Amino acid sequence: MVDSEMTMDSLRDQVLKFAEERDWEQFHSPKNLAISVSVEAAELLENFLWLTPEQSSTLTNDQLAKVSDELGDVLICLVNFAARLKINPLHAAAQKIRKNQEKYPIEKAKGSAKKYTEL
Amino acid sequence: MVDSEMTMDSLRDQVLKFAEERDWEQFHSPKNLAISVSVEAAELLENFLWLTPEQSSTLTNDQLAKVSDELGDVLICLVNFAARLKINPLHAAAQKIRKNQEKYPIEKAKGSAKKYTEL
Amino acid sequence: MVDSEMTMDSLRDQVLKFAEERDWEQFHSPKNLAISVSVEAAELLENFLWLTPEQSSTLTNDQLAKVSDELGDVLICLVNFAARLKINPLHAAAQKIRKNQEKYPIEKAKGSAKKYTEL
Amino acid sequence: MVDSEMTMDSLRDQVLKFAEERDWEQFHSPKNLAISVSVEAAELLENFLWLTPEQSSTLTNDQLAKVSDELGDVLICLVNFAARLKINPLHAAAQKIRKNQEKYPIEKAKGSAKKYTEL
Repeated sequence: MVDSEMTMDSLRDQVLKFAEERDWEQFHSPKNLAISVSVEAAELLENFLWLTPEQSSTLTNDQLAKVSDELGDVLICLVNFAARLKINPLHAAAQKIRKNQEKYPIEKAKGSAKKYTEL
Repeated sequence: MVDSEMTMDSLRDQVLKFAEERDWEQFHSPKNLAISVSVEAAELLENFLWLTPEQSSTLTNDQLAKVSDELGDVLICLVNFAARLKINPLHAAAQKIRKNQEKYPIEKAKGSAKKYTEL
Repeated sequence: MVDSEMTMDSLRDQVLKFAEERDWEQFHSPKNLAISVSVEAAELLENFLWLTPEQSSTLTNDQLAKVSDELGDVLICLVNFAARLKINPLHAAAQKIRKNQEKYPIEKAKGSAKKYTEL
Repeated sequence: MVDSEMTMDSLRDQVLKFAEERDWEQFHSPKNLAISVSVEAAELLENFLWLTPEQSSTLTNDQLAKVSDELGDVLICLVNFAARLKINPLHAAAQKIRKNQEKYPIEKAKGSAKKYTEL
């Protein structure tokens, strides 16, 4: 399969096969995988720790390659986590967007960084 | 669009449109979005804080609905982050799996939770 | 005891007594407490998500009160975690500063945000 | 100073001196330091990722030394963060314990892992 044909479903299959081949399912409780998502997200964040907002938009190729790897790790862990709980990540995101549309109506939220509880 | 047709590309388009309509792009530096991924990942994790590994595999419907919402938030932030840096998240994950296959060869990694640096 | 007499030792005693009175020690494995530190640290961070670096230095009294509460939560969880493993947090920090002094010698590290591995 | 005389105040002084000597204050906005607390907390957590709750209580000396170092990092970042905002971390924690005593009265919270909003 070439990358251009990659879908969320085929990613999930690859992630599950990777774990199964290594007999790692014994470690992959939803709790442990939720931890792994958080740990990988922090590794992604670490790359931006001392950057200004502007610098974070103009990464060097080396920085971008490292960030892309960490982003990949977060998604791999998230997809693994979702699969164990039989959640479709794309559906979960689509449903959350619909909820956010109600929590943040355009006319109220426009240009504001306030949380919906303070709008 | 019905959810069953949802793809990573259409999710990205929805996420970017949501931000654009609310004039939120001014807040969405890659640095801030990396923070948002980490914050949302911790909110996901909070749901599992006091659960045993076994309890985390047998969530109630209420718990599962909450977890699904938080999972959606993590993916939304991750997709937004990736789009700002023009990274394709599925490609980044596929590339990372290939690297992991080299770091964790089946014969060495089988049944072990050790980090590749300790294998 | 008035707050001005508060020490790390008396904080630890208060934290352990709080858990014991509520029969919560059953939940307080080092693993769970390590999760709690991370979850609380993310709640602290959430307060700064959309702020500019400058805004983060000039918080309103309301923001400061909220941040102080979250900071308290992080320290409480950290002290609880350390106590379960019989680690003295102040000693651990002092020892780490000594290591950092070797990793980041003044002449090399001055004015640089680089990681010690890149100095 | 020997470690046995270490207090939160002397730790703060050491942390601030360390940053000042390296001209690092320019990077230490409260926002960046809040990120650093979260990143270090995740590094601490990573040590427990694949451990069972039981294993997390019986660390080897090597594991304990690594955990102690990471714990030190979290406290160093937290103390630095607090100092920039002129918050006394011990007072913040003591105040939060008092609030928690109201949120989690012993008779209601005893033996329960529920959040105060669900008690």
